[in-house]
Amino acid sequence: MSYKAFDDDDLAFLKSLCGDERVTARDAVGEDYCHDELGGAFARPDARVQVLSIGEISQVMRYAYGHDLPVTVRGSGTGLVGGAVPLEGGILLDTSGMTNVIELDEKNMTLTVEPGVLLMDVAKYVEERGFFYPPDPGEKTATIGGNISTNAGGMRAVKYGVTRDYVRALTVVLPNGDVVELGGKIAKNSSGYSLKDLIVGSEGTLGIVARATLRLLPLPKAKISLLVPFPDLAAAIRTVPEVIRAASVPTAVEFMEREVILAAEKFQARKFPDSSADAYLLLTFDGASREEVDLAWDAAAKTCLANGAKDVFISDTPERNESIWSARGAFLEAIKASTTEMDECDVVVPRAHVAEFVLFSHGLQKRHGVRIRSFGHAGDGNLHIYVLRDDLGEAEWKSKLSAVFEDLYARARELGGQVSGEHGIGSAKRPYLAESLAPEVRSLMRGIKAAFDPKNILNPGKVVVQD
Amino acid sequence: MSYKAFDDDDLAFLKSLCGDERVTARDAVGEDYCHDELGGAFARPDARVQVLSIGEISQVMRYAYGHDLPVTVRGSGTGLVGGAVPLEGGILLDTSGMTNVIELDEKNMTLTVEPGVLLMDVAKYVEERGFFYPPDPGEKTATIGGNISTNAGGMRAVKYGVTRDYVRALTVVLPNGDVVELGGKIAKNSSGYSLKDLIVGSEGTLGIVARATLRLLPLPKAKISLLVPFPDLAAAIRTVPEVIRAASVPTAVEFMEREVILAAEKFQARKFPDSSADAYLLLTFDGASREEVDLAWDAAAKTCLANGAKDVFISDTPERNESIWSARGAFLEAIKASTTEMDECDVVVPRAHVAEFVLFSHGLQKRHGVRIRSFGHAGDGNLHIYVLRDDLGEAEWKSKLSAVFEDLYARARELGGQVSGEHGIGSAKRPYLAESLAPEVRSLMRGIKAAFDPKNILNPGKVVVQD
Repeated sequence: MSYKAFDDDDLAFLKSLCGDERVTARDAVGEDYCHDELGGAFARPDARVQVLSIGEISQVMRYAYGHDLPVTVRGSGTGLVGGAVPLEGGILLDTSGMTNVIELDEKNMTLTVEPGVLLMDVAKYVEERGFFYPPDPGEKTATIGGNISTNAGGMRAVKYGVTRDYVRALTVVLPNGDVVELGGKIAKNSSGYSLKDLIVGSEGTLGIVARATLRLLPLPKAKISLLVPFPDLAAAIRTVPEVIRAASVPTAVEFMEREVILAAEKFQARKFPDSSADAYLLLTFDGASREEVDLAWDAAAKTCLANGAKDVFISDTPERNESIWSARGAFLEAIKASTTEMDECDVVVPRAHVAEFVLFSHGLQKRHGVRIRSFGHAGDGNLHIYVLRDDLGEAEWKSKLSAVFEDLYARARELGGQVSGEHGIGSAKRPYLAESLAPEVRSLMRGIKAAFDPKNILNPGKVVVQD
Repeated sequence: MSYKAFDDDDLAFLKSLCGDERVTARDAVGEDYCHDELGGAFARPDARVQVLSIGEISQVMRYAYGHDLPVTVRGSGTGLVGGAVPLEGGILLDTSGMTNVIELDEKNMTLTVEPGVLLMDVAKYVEERGFFYPPDPGEKTATIGGNISTNAGGMRAVKYGVTRDYVRALTVVLPNGDVVELGGKIAKNSSGYSLKDLIVGSEGTLGIVARATLRLLPLPKAKISLLVPFPDLAAAIRTVPEVIRAASVPTAVEFMEREVILAAEKFQARKFPDSSADAYLLLTFDGASREEVDLAWDAAAKTCLANGAKDVFISDTPERNESIWSARGAFLEAIKASTTEMDECDVVVPRAHVAEFVLFSHGLQKRHGVRIRSFGHAGDGNLHIYVLRDDLGEAEWKSKLSAVFEDLYARARELGGQVSGEHGIGSAKRPYLAESLAPEVRSLMRGIKAAFDPKNILNPGKVVVQD
């Protein structure tokens, strides 16, 4: 697909639509807009336009479609796989200014928002009003549009599921500028192909999420966390399926190893409640009453102790919860601060294979001579494995990183896993997606892309694999 | 699209593949296989083949694709919208013989089954082993393949969601015979477009569900039902959002009116626990312990009484539960037995509009001079509204039915609803789907159909709307 070169007429159109102050072009586009959080991909757009309405998104797309200009959507740029990097230049369509909450519908228990509202603002808004938006990805400054585009998961997926499960309706701008409404404020739907579910997780390659109606739950009235030290990682993770079956399903089941806790202690300059054991499970339970939660954690604690846990620390005060969860929240930044550069593998494997996979990743450190750190969601099988550059030279880093990734993704495939549990494919994981999908599936994905975006102008170079 | 006429060579191929005893042709295909449960659509296939393996499905499809023969998949034929009726003749591919449970994976909490396993057998199999498959559509003799194809909902959607939420992985045979694996035994997935979610609810028009891996939960250890009489329907349904917000989310919230209860009493020749009130809510709560469930129903009962309920009958014995739920299960059959013929409207509207919609349907009885009965899922907005023929002549019946349907679907659209909550579109609801979808959405659906089934041989005449 060849695109038209972006020229002064195109710039003039964008400025006439959105005004000078919301359009920047070429070198005036700051470097921040040329990469995402991990920075592996870098590309400068010809212009960045801050849109403020569905109408503006539609008009930009209609123009781009008519003039063969590539368009890449960007929220707050917290992605980790290059999904919001404009690889082919063209227009960077920035939705981060669309931050209005449109409606809280208390009877239907839905919240309708613009795509630029931050995840943390969605959570705060509804919790102040007695409601609960369950998806809880680690990066709270991501936009809700970005969360929908990657089908973000987060800590609470064990009990509550992922972003997809909380998207009731979407207003989507198609590549040609048409605006469509998908889904509704309804709890069931068997009315034709679920285009809504196709848009969720499509990383801005099929259409632009311009408005979203989210499903809410009643705010749980009680919550408790358990920090459980185990003699080793295998013992900790072996216990997870037992805990999930023993009692109420936990809200979250995270695993953490001592070396990552030590890195977080150093990064935060504060002590974690315990760091004497090799491996920990962090369990959370929530419910409609303290009694319900007490029944749940008591059963879980007994199961842990019967499976070799060294102790069970109960955390039911805001202070103690904060000290544990702020450390958990700092893992990514702490690991990042401990090295010069890093890249990540976000595989998801069946829950029963988590320990096996993490131990396999440990073994790769010696085999490839590179430092690897991990933490993740033991309850749902989604692992975050970080390969650290430390003092490796450029060529050696690239070659070791690639070798480690090949080994990790090959092992994940053998175990029935998938390339990404929640971060998406973007450009960085496309080669691994290509290896993991059958040719027939790759072909269906290309067919769907062509049905939505026949000119391939929307986020080109992402997700979809050419043969 | 024109198809090749089915001839003796085609019949010989099917017999060579599956043996004489699993292939019937032309008039030897019984009438039962020419329609579904409601019988509105009737068409005879050229041949019916009972397949027993993924390999056989694949070979039938490869042959049909090569010879331009239409293929329609059928499970146990309990559909209500003609989805399994072979409108263009050709091959009726019967998966009802594929009834093996392949694997219960206790650690990953999944059940892998062939598509012909009945819903009631899935439920029984897992409950005997301490697990729980939450989707609970009324028709227990439907196959799991049919449930997946219509994204069946059922009573427990309020708390647990619908079939889509419990499909972890699918083995799908594409129209050309290729076999693909979608999803996995994983709780999160952001690895490209969710083709699995596209297959769910596509009613056998994109691919054939040849094997499914279902997500299970721990079996709730306690369960209780409340039967709550209200002075009128509006008061009953007005209470639903209050109940859902007051405490734990109920497992089910059904509404029923006296006249439907009386019909069920007559049909079953046994008394319902109470029939003194105009309208009832039937609430169910489940949980990990009796204490948890007691907390939940106590809060709900108080909310009902504060909102005008006349009483609250607690049902916590198997006998009492059976008497209530067997009546609820008999509603469809009881209404059917009370008339000569009927058709149904399965709209879903936002929960806040349920009362308004049901009262609107009452008004249509007088306006169109036809008897209408309804019951449904007050908690999720999915209504089952039955238009009864009684002693109307053929022409008058068709014309009244069509006028009532037009009014019902138009009103549902105005209220932000959709054509089908759980029964699907098939052929019967296609005209109403066409009216409810924007041209751009209809066009995207056609594009997706073409990407999967370029020769339009799989279940032609269903779901997808031509312009």
